Amino acid sequence: MMIKIIAGGKKSKDWIKEGQAEYEKRLKKPYDVHFDYYEDAKIAAFASNWPFKADEYVILLDERGQNISSPELASRLENAFNSSKKVVFIIGDAFGVSPEIREKSDFIWSFSNLVFPHELMRIMLTEQIYRAQEINRGGKYHHV
Amino acid sequence: MMIKIIAGGKKSKDWIKEGQAEYEKRLKKPYDVHFDYYEDAKIAAFASNWPFKADEYVILLDERGQNISSPELASRLENAFNSSKKVVFIIGDAFGVSPEIREKSDFIWSFSNLVFPHELMRIMLTEQIYRAQEINRGGKYHHV
Repeated sequence: MMIKIIAGGKKSKDWIKEGQAEYEKRLKKPYDVHFDYYEDAKIAAFASNWPFKADEYVILLDERGQNISSPELASRLENAFNSSKKVVFIIGDAFGVSPEIREKSDFIWSFSNLVFPHELMRIMLTEQIYRAQEINRGGKYHHV
Repeated sequence: MMIKIIAGGKKSKDWIKEGQAEYEKRLKKPYDVHFDYYEDAKIAAFASNWPFKADEYVILLDERGQNISSPELASRLENAFNSSKKVVFIIGDAFGVSPEIREKSDFIWSFSNLVFPHELMRIMLTEQIYRAQEINRGGKYHHV
């Protein structure tokens, strides 16, 4: 496990699970992902009790972050792996995370100027990680 | 039917259909959507034979378009309905559409700096239309 996705709420609809699985099953090390579901309150507690280590590159998904392209994400992941870092993505809850969590994260990433539901973000994020894998291995999946 | 979505390719996976249905079933007039699936070649033919009328406001989804926020989409849709226009969304194929189609469309909309697969875009678009409906009726679904 080199990529961990921390998301609020354990239960999700079947189509969300199937959508995630669609891209998850195509991932290979170091792009293999592991989902950790937390209660939103537990994610909020990261503000005072930061659980991540120096070898973890923490990317927070937040609307107020920076918009990057798929190739830019691919290069950020590649850089992290080249420095022997694991990558952690945090999908905050619908009301966003505290300023402390934003401050402690290594990178704050905004997917879009649009707001999407957090469940759908899980599929969108898994797909972007798969796309990054394909960009970095020179596959044909990504073309513009 | 006040909103038509034209997308390439008829067949799609079950989770895509269920994801679309998840948001479609919550839509009410004038935000009700109808999907029309075309062969990609037929969408390409719009370049020489534009099938849309003056009372249709055509929004093309294309990576080279303008990034807008969910409230901006909501206000564009509301303006179209207030001028008694129907709204047509075109989801081009993975290789994009011709310059002629881009020129003839009323608005070119880019969801994100990220590239997403066209099937997943169908769910994302339906969700954004539902979000626009809720923004315009003052519902609680959208909060930032």
